[in-house]
Amino acid sequence: MQFSQELKEDLSIRQRRLQDAMQTQGVEACILTTNVNIFYVSGIVYTGYYYLPAAGEPIHFIKSPQATPIENAVYIRKPEQITEILKDKGIPLPKSILLETDSVAYSQIVRLLAIFNLSECLNASVWMRKIRSVKTDYEIDQVKQCARRHELVYSKIPEIYRKGMTDIKLQIEIERLMRLNGSVGTFRGYGDNMEIFMGSLLVGDNAQAPSPFDFALGGAGVSPIVPLGANGSVIQEGQAIMVDMAGNYSPWMTDMTRVFSAGKTSGLAYKAHQVSIDIHEKTMEVFQPGFPCAELYNLALEIVNKEDLSDYFMGTKQQAKFIGHGLGLEINEPPVLTPRSKELLVENTVFALEPKFVLPAIGAVGVENTYLVTNSGLEKITLFEEQIIELN
Amino acid sequence: MQFSQELKEDLSIRQRRLQDAMQTQGVEACILTTNVNIFYVSGIVYTGYYYLPAAGEPIHFIKSPQATPIENAVYIRKPEQITEILKDKGIPLPKSILLETDSVAYSQIVRLLAIFNLSECLNASVWMRKIRSVKTDYEIDQVKQCARRHELVYSKIPEIYRKGMTDIKLQIEIERLMRLNGSVGTFRGYGDNMEIFMGSLLVGDNAQAPSPFDFALGGAGVSPIVPLGANGSVIQEGQAIMVDMAGNYSPWMTDMTRVFSAGKTSGLAYKAHQVSIDIHEKTMEVFQPGFPCAELYNLALEIVNKEDLSDYFMGTKQQAKFIGHGLGLEINEPPVLTPRSKELLVENTVFALEPKFVLPAIGAVGVENTYLVTNSGLEKITLFEEQIIELN
Repeated sequence: MQFSQELKEDLSIRQRRLQDAMQTQGVEACILTTNVNIFYVSGIVYTGYYYLPAAGEPIHFIKSPQATPIENAVYIRKPEQITEILKDKGIPLPKSILLETDSVAYSQIVRLLAIFNLSECLNASVWMRKIRSVKTDYEIDQVKQCARRHELVYSKIPEIYRKGMTDIKLQIEIERLMRLNGSVGTFRGYGDNMEIFMGSLLVGDNAQAPSPFDFALGGAGVSPIVPLGANGSVIQEGQAIMVDMAGNYSPWMTDMTRVFSAGKTSGLAYKAHQVSIDIHEKTMEVFQPGFPCAELYNLALEIVNKEDLSDYFMGTKQQAKFIGHGLGLEINEPPVLTPRSKELLVENTVFALEPKFVLPAIGAVGVENTYLVTNSGLEKITLFEEQIIELN
Repeated sequence: MQFSQELKEDLSIRQRRLQDAMQTQGVEACILTTNVNIFYVSGIVYTGYYYLPAAGEPIHFIKSPQATPIENAVYIRKPEQITEILKDKGIPLPKSILLETDSVAYSQIVRLLAIFNLSECLNASVWMRKIRSVKTDYEIDQVKQCARRHELVYSKIPEIYRKGMTDIKLQIEIERLMRLNGSVGTFRGYGDNMEIFMGSLLVGDNAQAPSPFDFALGGAGVSPIVPLGANGSVIQEGQAIMVDMAGNYSPWMTDMTRVFSAGKTSGLAYKAHQVSIDIHEKTMEVFQPGFPCAELYNLALEIVNKEDLSDYFMGTKQQAKFIGHGLGLEINEPPVLTPRSKELLVENTVFALEPKFVLPAIGAVGVENTYLVTNSGLEKITLFEEQIIELN
């Protein structure tokens, strides 16, 4: 694998963003070791440590022996070699470091601190998630390429639906379509309580079932070891089928929810679904770069309350307190569209908006789209029929 | 969901094992928060903290709001409430605790230590992996149920093979068969450098490609974000197809590798494959409960060397230094069958033995089976044709 010139330049931009933040805050070095951040800064996944000084070039300390196209790679067996190698290169050891303390295990951070003879560090997890939330041109192009595959797969769902199918059977056939159209399979989320397989498909009362995970909606799942999503129920005539399957066709993802129905569904379902579409349209209309996340939530809630649908909004038994989130290499990136958020949606942020309603016996309705914040407003990235699609 | 009497009793056995170890080592409390350990001790996945004193009943501090069938559940919003609730219940705060320091993020462990006003803790990750490596009767029954599905799926592979298929296309059709036969999808491994989707399918020269992950074999993968396994090559006549797809049909898993071939394959492939089978047979013959892991490795290596196949053993460019591993709720549990291991394979351990060979241009060959250590030797759990199966 060789990197394109475009990718090389993009990696420089990402590195510079991190170094700018380090210089502003006076941090001397950053060490990254999680797959997602290693990929973001190096263009590949390796097992090891990415070492970046506040100025100058990074060093890739690599434990896995695969051939790589990256420069400044040094092979190591254990992290204790990092300081030895820095000394050999005449690089002074940093007095302040950034480590991924929200996502790397305690024992590994303790080991790294001991190697650098430090007692504390700053939180690279938070920094990297903040930096990654604003996309480069290269990343935006990847998100758009992903959207085209995502749309193509959804367009084929009517062909694979059969009357009397269970929810899980339909999901399995969608999973196959996804893989045949380039889904990488592995679906990356941030956080221990965010386990999900290839996405979510919810039908009927199962849409009300709470899950232990912090996703917008739940579902009971088919096994106690994976308590989320489809539960094996037969899809009944008149029910809504909410398809929120992963858009992981490129490293940078899209998030898109569409609703199908087994025959015609209920008047309430069509109404609530239209309110979701209205929220999207109103959002696009009023949005300006720098719009506060909390205000997007409040805008949605105002429409929901006016339409008297608050009992169904984002769940029934368990109601999620957010209507969207950033996404990219992980499906749940900052910012989060909650009423308590202080964050702004700045230019080149990619985020998903998902005002949804859960209707007892019917299922879940509502549209989710991925948007890009441009210099003048919002660009819709996920372009596919938004009305409820009838399956027969 | 209600628990069976059998499961309730099994959960008591698991709890007692942990408490016995705590009492022996003089630790006053254990707090678990990872999904896999929460499931092991409580029978469900929840977001929160399982609190176990050295004697007496556990308390489940649950943040996720789903209804649960478990007793002693207390709902909390944040971990700081744990000590408040313990005080309210008149339970003295522990002076020594076990926390999952190898698998829980630094910032979360620091927070828990602060809550208990402690500066250090013991490593529950290591303890739990040790305890989980010896299975209960309930767990062994689950492993055997899983094996039946695993075998059934492999038996259908000849029906889905088509000449001229790519490796990834064949893998996708196997993934679908797996899901239709009850695979839960999510495939659990331990450790940050163990990312894998639903297993591994390797054909031809791609079997030689190293990956950044610590699995027995590698493969280049189809995307830089998931650098492992099938790489999209067309399967050529004469090549070996190594199928090592996940046995995740029940929470407790099986691991099984079988080899298929596109038409007839090479003499060297048949020979090396037979040597792998010989290693399995010799192992079953000499095995006694308490056999050292290192000796199983050495036994295999001796046979490999005698047959002059060491250049192909467990890889070519990158050779794995283990030939098997424990498994259960995670695919990679202790013990590991390496030459440096000091561990013994005691009764009721479930482990996979996978002596494999990588042959340039041909692919990988060799059998992997899951075994149970009984009171007199080894019981083979994965029962399926072991010779190379010709596909046409």
